[in-house]
Amino acid sequence: MNKGFIQCLKTCLPAERLLLHEADRLAYGYDNSRLQDLPDAVALPVSADEISQIIHCCRKHQVAIIPRGRGTGTTGATVPIDGGLVISMERMNRILELDPANRVIRAEAGVNNQTIQDAAASAGFFWPPDPTSAAYCSIGGNLAYNSAGPRAVKYGTCRENTLGLKLITGTGETLNCGVYTTKGVVGLDLTRLVIGSEGALGIITEATLKLVPLAQGKRTLKLIYSSMTAAASAVSRIMSQPVIPCALEFMDGNALDIVRAYSRADLPDNAGAMLMVEVDGSEACLDDAVASVAAAAKVDGHVQTQTATTPQEIRALWDTRKALSPSLRKIAPKKINEDVVVPVSHMAELINGLNALSQKYAIPIVNFGHAGNGNIHVNLLVDPDDPHQASVVDTCLDEVFDLVLKLRGTLSGEHGVGIAKRDYVARELGKTEIEIMKGIKRQFDPDNLLNPGKSLPL
Amino acid sequence: MNKGFIQCLKTCLPAERLLLHEADRLAYGYDNSRLQDLPDAVALPVSADEISQIIHCCRKHQVAIIPRGRGTGTTGATVPIDGGLVISMERMNRILELDPANRVIRAEAGVNNQTIQDAAASAGFFWPPDPTSAAYCSIGGNLAYNSAGPRAVKYGTCRENTLGLKLITGTGETLNCGVYTTKGVVGLDLTRLVIGSEGALGIITEATLKLVPLAQGKRTLKLIYSSMTAAASAVSRIMSQPVIPCALEFMDGNALDIVRAYSRADLPDNAGAMLMVEVDGSEACLDDAVASVAAAAKVDGHVQTQTATTPQEIRALWDTRKALSPSLRKIAPKKINEDVVVPVSHMAELINGLNALSQKYAIPIVNFGHAGNGNIHVNLLVDPDDPHQASVVDTCLDEVFDLVLKLRGTLSGEHGVGIAKRDYVARELGKTEIEIMKGIKRQFDPDNLLNPGKSLPL
Repeated sequence: MNKGFIQCLKTCLPAERLLLHEADRLAYGYDNSRLQDLPDAVALPVSADEISQIIHCCRKHQVAIIPRGRGTGTTGATVPIDGGLVISMERMNRILELDPANRVIRAEAGVNNQTIQDAAASAGFFWPPDPTSAAYCSIGGNLAYNSAGPRAVKYGTCRENTLGLKLITGTGETLNCGVYTTKGVVGLDLTRLVIGSEGALGIITEATLKLVPLAQGKRTLKLIYSSMTAAASAVSRIMSQPVIPCALEFMDGNALDIVRAYSRADLPDNAGAMLMVEVDGSEACLDDAVASVAAAAKVDGHVQTQTATTPQEIRALWDTRKALSPSLRKIAPKKINEDVVVPVSHMAELINGLNALSQKYAIPIVNFGHAGNGNIHVNLLVDPDDPHQASVVDTCLDEVFDLVLKLRGTLSGEHGVGIAKRDYVARELGKTEIEIMKGIKRQFDPDNLLNPGKSLPL
Repeated sequence: MNKGFIQCLKTCLPAERLLLHEADRLAYGYDNSRLQDLPDAVALPVSADEISQIIHCCRKHQVAIIPRGRGTGTTGATVPIDGGLVISMERMNRILELDPANRVIRAEAGVNNQTIQDAAASAGFFWPPDPTSAAYCSIGGNLAYNSAGPRAVKYGTCRENTLGLKLITGTGETLNCGVYTTKGVVGLDLTRLVIGSEGALGIITEATLKLVPLAQGKRTLKLIYSSMTAAASAVSRIMSQPVIPCALEFMDGNALDIVRAYSRADLPDNAGAMLMVEVDGSEACLDDAVASVAAAAKVDGHVQTQTATTPQEIRALWDTRKALSPSLRKIAPKKINEDVVVPVSHMAELINGLNALSQKYAIPIVNFGHAGNGNIHVNLLVDPDDPHQASVVDTCLDEVFDLVLKLRGTLSGEHGVGIAKRDYVARELGKTEIEIMKGIKRQFDPDNLLNPGKSLPL
């Protein structure tokens, strides 16, 4: 590592917030993708000014910058593939303003999602994005990936729930994006351009988030179908009636089989697919909402509907779904988890196609996910030590992505691109689109220092 | 006009869709801003390919391109201030796909908003953006301005209700932005970058719009307050409870006085401000929704609540609000209508400040608008032929904008910048932000041919 660069960093940060020992750096070299590499240094800034100074050092010495939230991402976007400086946002964890009268919370990027939810709840609100990692992940990371979760089907993703951002660009300049109000059309929309850009445009230091009032109550429905085709047609019907669920999750037949085999499952024998639906609202409406969803759910192939009201009943209904992830980990600890999206009406076709690929390549494929958005977590249960599977898995994945794009889908709904999907991006985006995106990046980061080699094809 | 350019255009378009006579061009030189200028030519393309060819001609001959929907904008964004070619999208008016199973409608940019609403309604859906000009304006124009309307308070603006776009850039290239699904995080978010860009990045030729199921029913509340301060505090309280209204409009005391004086108004003597609230949902919920809103609305200074259920009752309640615009036109046909936004909690402070400016400059100021978003239509009732008013109106406007920005607001919520507000933009956006935006524009339009001199400071 360039000595002048380290000297420069030492003028920006006290020694205890500049990690140079290998043992310390090691912890900042991986995320939840199983990819790993060693950064040359790790900075733990406490202010936007510090970040700006750090970036000036990086620019002077042409060192790559890898912004990092809590490392819960699954595509390697925070992995320092060619070394460089990791800037970890963990010390910028202050809530700056809770403003219930305007339904806004303003916070530093390193604040955990759960901390935002707790602060918002104290005033009767929540912030919609709810990734599974909510207890650990930071809002800066959520925004960088445009992370969502089950609630997105009703309440939207980060893009629909963020009013403004502060960003330090690749030239160390501060950029104020967006507004403090729920409408605003002056200038180009930089806020949403930055959301989902995976650290390529700058380091998000602060966010102004739109809050939503907590619903009074919730009901849960567990719906069993004889086939995925039946379940998918129910999803289309549920999404066409006026009561939009606040969660609409599914498990395919293979997923149900696994839960049956490796856990206990309250499932009829002919269960070929399952939907979990939640509706929220004021208590006076919930029975009617359940009735409306349940009526829409009764398509050919519908087997069973169970409804839960109390927290205990709700927990029992979710048992089957919650049993899936531990079971999958047991069978295939090194499984590949994709995150594709297809139009809701093509979900059954996708699942059937995946089953065919599973047979063709002798790789078990198990699917579950956010049915209301057509966002499907495709799990290839591969064992990388199995020579057959290791030799065909890439070809199989290729065909999975081809199928998704043929069905008018997209390669990622919420996990992002990072390194894991970088080389597939050019299948979805055209040359013109990619060139424009690279041109936009150059405006924010003329020296290509911010997370180089990620998100867009090389 | 350059003869070679006209020759080039003639190779792209048949004579009947290339307007060169002054009388024909005149109709394409103005919008709803009272600004006017004469384009050198007007093209009426019927396909994206034609637009691409036309732009190649413009580029070859370095002629400015002014994209135009139906000319209902209020800020002059479609006015050809330095001549050039107007590309009117009126002939690209086909609905390409209505896909209820995926809640999507895909249409050419020249389709009217109302046509989209009618097609969507035939399948039980609507598209949320509902500008007052819905019957006349095109969705391409809506997207270019990020137009909204009353429903935005619950259902969002174009940015929250568009999945993808097709765009022809300033180099004549076709850009596919976005996805056909409700989630998607591959690449940078070009869709929302283009929405609200006022024709500066390209010509929108096609849009994939997200549909929402029509609600079963609706209730309307008319709420009277003794003062704007009381009404504004009710707005904050209404927006904090879980029933988000599908409209939350207001009129200030001056607006009520005008309706009283120039129309008949069903208003108590001590009415100092009025809110109109609509809630929608399933019939089973509406009484409860009304009760929840009505309870939140009862702040100090609350004078009266009236509720309407039948179409006839609803129309009667809206009478006061509907009487305002004709009355204003009667008094001040050349009034200036601004479109500022402040955080909801600062609305009363803004109105009080506007009243002080009204006194200071002896210009009547009347305010109404979308209270739930803090989006206030500030009407300066100026007579440009009055020498006093003509001499102070600019200074007064200056102070209006200063006040808005001091209250953490923005200069436009839905009307956009165009020419009308271009020279004020630098008060809201910093130098760094403006330079980045100009840099982004260069990626789409390297020769600065697309709507030059609009939207961003020169």
